[in-house]
Amino acid sequence: MAKEVTNREDNYSQWYNNLVVKADLAEASAVRGCMVIKPYGYAIWEKMHEQLDKMFKETGHVNAYFPLFIPKSFLSREAEHVEGFAKECAVVTHHRLMVNPNGAGVVVDPDARLEEELIVRPTSETIIWNTYKNWIKSWRDLPILVNQWANVVRWEMRTRLFLRTAEFLWQEGHTAHATKEEAMEEAQRMVEVYAKFAREYMSMPVVVGHKSETERFAGAVDTLCIEALMQDGKALQAGTSHFLGQNFAKAFDVQYATKEGNLEYVWATSWGVSTRLMGALIMSHSDNNGLVLPPKLAPIHVVMVPIFKTDEERNHILDKMAAMKQDMELRGLSVKIDDRDNLRPGFKFAEWELKGVPVRIAIGPRDLEGGVVELARRDTMTKESVAQEGLTQYVLDLMDTIQNNIYDKAFKFREENTFKVDTWEEFKVKIEEGGFLLCHWDGTAETEAKIKEETKATIRCIPVDTDVCVEEGKCVYSGKPSHRRVLFARSY
Amino acid sequence: MAKEVTNREDNYSQWYNNLVVKADLAEASAVRGCMVIKPYGYAIWEKMHEQLDKMFKETGHVNAYFPLFIPKSFLSREAEHVEGFAKECAVVTHHRLMVNPNGAGVVVDPDARLEEELIVRPTSETIIWNTYKNWIKSWRDLPILVNQWANVVRWEMRTRLFLRTAEFLWQEGHTAHATKEEAMEEAQRMVEVYAKFAREYMSMPVVVGHKSETERFAGAVDTLCIEALMQDGKALQAGTSHFLGQNFAKAFDVQYATKEGNLEYVWATSWGVSTRLMGALIMSHSDNNGLVLPPKLAPIHVVMVPIFKTDEERNHILDKMAAMKQDMELRGLSVKIDDRDNLRPGFKFAEWELKGVPVRIAIGPRDLEGGVVELARRDTMTKESVAQEGLTQYVLDLMDTIQNNIYDKAFKFREENTFKVDTWEEFKVKIEEGGFLLCHWDGTAETEAKIKEETKATIRCIPVDTDVCVEEGKCVYSGKPSHRRVLFARSY
Repeated sequence: MAKEVTNREDNYSQWYNNLVVKADLAEASAVRGCMVIKPYGYAIWEKMHEQLDKMFKETGHVNAYFPLFIPKSFLSREAEHVEGFAKECAVVTHHRLMVNPNGAGVVVDPDARLEEELIVRPTSETIIWNTYKNWIKSWRDLPILVNQWANVVRWEMRTRLFLRTAEFLWQEGHTAHATKEEAMEEAQRMVEVYAKFAREYMSMPVVVGHKSETERFAGAVDTLCIEALMQDGKALQAGTSHFLGQNFAKAFDVQYATKEGNLEYVWATSWGVSTRLMGALIMSHSDNNGLVLPPKLAPIHVVMVPIFKTDEERNHILDKMAAMKQDMELRGLSVKIDDRDNLRPGFKFAEWELKGVPVRIAIGPRDLEGGVVELARRDTMTKESVAQEGLTQYVLDLMDTIQNNIYDKAFKFREENTFKVDTWEEFKVKIEEGGFLLCHWDGTAETEAKIKEETKATIRCIPVDTDVCVEEGKCVYSGKPSHRRVLFARSY
Repeated sequence: MAKEVTNREDNYSQWYNNLVVKADLAEASAVRGCMVIKPYGYAIWEKMHEQLDKMFKETGHVNAYFPLFIPKSFLSREAEHVEGFAKECAVVTHHRLMVNPNGAGVVVDPDARLEEELIVRPTSETIIWNTYKNWIKSWRDLPILVNQWANVVRWEMRTRLFLRTAEFLWQEGHTAHATKEEAMEEAQRMVEVYAKFAREYMSMPVVVGHKSETERFAGAVDTLCIEALMQDGKALQAGTSHFLGQNFAKAFDVQYATKEGNLEYVWATSWGVSTRLMGALIMSHSDNNGLVLPPKLAPIHVVMVPIFKTDEERNHILDKMAAMKQDMELRGLSVKIDDRDNLRPGFKFAEWELKGVPVRIAIGPRDLEGGVVELARRDTMTKESVAQEGLTQYVLDLMDTIQNNIYDKAFKFREENTFKVDTWEEFKVKIEEGGFLLCHWDGTAETEAKIKEETKATIRCIPVDTDVCVEEGKCVYSGKPSHRRVLFARSY
């Protein structure tokens, strides 16, 4: 097989990169840190986009679009915000090129310097709250429930396809509310939307929780998140939802007249998921044969590969496949017939396994005669002979089975790799093995920093599921009293 | 009424701006030349996006995503291309800000200068062809039929909401082909897709034609376009489809091995429409009462306004409306009940007229008793009493009627404002009055330039519809012989 992938056990990081490139999901571009999302990868992102957009609209949100550029001075308005983003900003300083007076090509025209530099948005709180100032006068203008689908740029020094790139695609919700309670509810509602999407569409179990103060979004009062466990035992933050308090309303002077006629600052949330979800999806389910896609996000549900010797056999089989395809597509399945004439079936099998297509159907002359097909499941790598009659319904049912099986497998993996750890010695051993460590913590940023320094582990979140976590104990590091466990892990 | 719009006859340009802002479509932002697309405007763009995307996929295209940034040196590779875009480039020169050592706020960190400046994409031919170089080895890799939905930046000095903004949203198709014929066919196919979309979804008649050499896209061998006539008699270029020959393949050295084993340069097309279509839509149909939206692109098809005196009446009417809404939504209509309690019906009527909602339904106590509703059409501003029974089907049929009526009206306007002009004296008079002028032209760039200089009119296109245009005659300016008429107009 031409496109062999490094074994996951040998080099996890190389396995991941191999897979992304060889499954035609994305590749590095000529621009440092920026990726090209290839059609097959983009088709998965489109499915994510479509489903998330539906869920946002069902929860009352509408889409809008704000400028790519943010005046430099806007960033400085919220002190923590600028501190969080200043070091990774792409800065536009000029608006024109000119022919190089001293040689070939073009150079920046020194006369076209901008009066104020523009930042390519790393996130849009500042430009949006500057806009909301004009949209909000009274309580009747609230709430504002807006989402934006956009590209953003954060000049990361070490980048990895989908997981950390200088430019990425995302959605960012920015809502404005009359009361603190309403804004807090919104932040919770949206992290639950993300959790539902991760579980039901990505087949990815996630822990919902609050970030510690240290790990909060720059400018937030509280950050909620979903955290998933990857197959190498590292955590991945897959989505965040921030309660911003009145920080941005104060920075941009956004007040509203209450029913009683008083002026009050507006309460805010923001929440986002990005193409990073692609990385999470890949690392949650894939194996040494390649991608494993949950049916709800798979661009192709069923691939059909004809097996034949003669042209006559080929024609009969392809006719049969065309009829099956039509029947399946009427029921909402996406089907591809791989009739390429220059590749052997074995090569095709491997290629579609690499691309994670949930079901493969092969038909040879004997299958045709016997009224059966050979059906292979990508998730279990099992094969069976299935009757052609009723095949569409069989495949439809199988899609649900596969969707659930992938989730169950990932859930089992997480359960097996989540540990309650109560001593520092055990912590240091366990963290090397990977997984989620549920530990008591004394609640101080100092202890958090020391644990990170000594083990590279961070608090992924303070889980909202109190059943698991709320109990008395002693901090795993300092031994000081603690009232609940929090989730530690090394992370992406 | 609070949101009065300037009369179209008094000041067309101000009427347009008023309408865009007051109908909540878009507004200027704090960033020079960049707009904020508000939720109602974005909802129309989403409908355009969705339908166009469907049409692209039906013609075999897939979506992908390429970097926002283009290395400066890439732009220089194709000589005409860089000449076309160098003067309007947003240039990223640094990747970090730092605390201002001499005062407040942040400044650009001089140590974070990029080795090579990056241009925010004004269009993506260069970065994409640099990528295609790695994707294309043999004839089996062709054709590549890729589209990208993205934001682009062209630093225009004079901007207008939707029509000409520094940043805009668009789609850009970039295809690669083995033969010249195939690429030319693709460019034609896509301009026809645009024409179909304009006619059937935007209800906007368009002329399909070729650009003159002067007006071609920078780097194209041939540019096809759709041109529409606005209500002030000016033309608007609404979409372009370029046959790029082998220009970009040569600039980026993209060759493929033919079936026979020879190496040949790849043939290319690119094609795009943008949020400019929003401007075209607005200026094609709107009137002094506001927007007129064709049903296929209207975010809201039907608005319902209750008319009542007592709370009891209000409740009865709203119950009835809720039932009607449900029935209509099951049939695919988008319905809004305007139950705001602080506004009079007359104010609401005017607001929804301003926003161009195709049908308004009002119900008062007597209507409720009589089993009827008052139905008002936005396109004709007519009212009628319609039976509640069968209302959904009535409204569904009406949507088609309105869609067609809007088209017919725009078509009639264009017919009445398209003139065959054969003398220079008449040309100078007619061009002041506005409209499409079909004239003979001697085919030289010189004459074209002189006509533009003297009248600001340009050749909008050389129409492909030969019935109208192919005949012998004499150039309207130079008197030299000509074999066909071309379309002149002043334009946006």
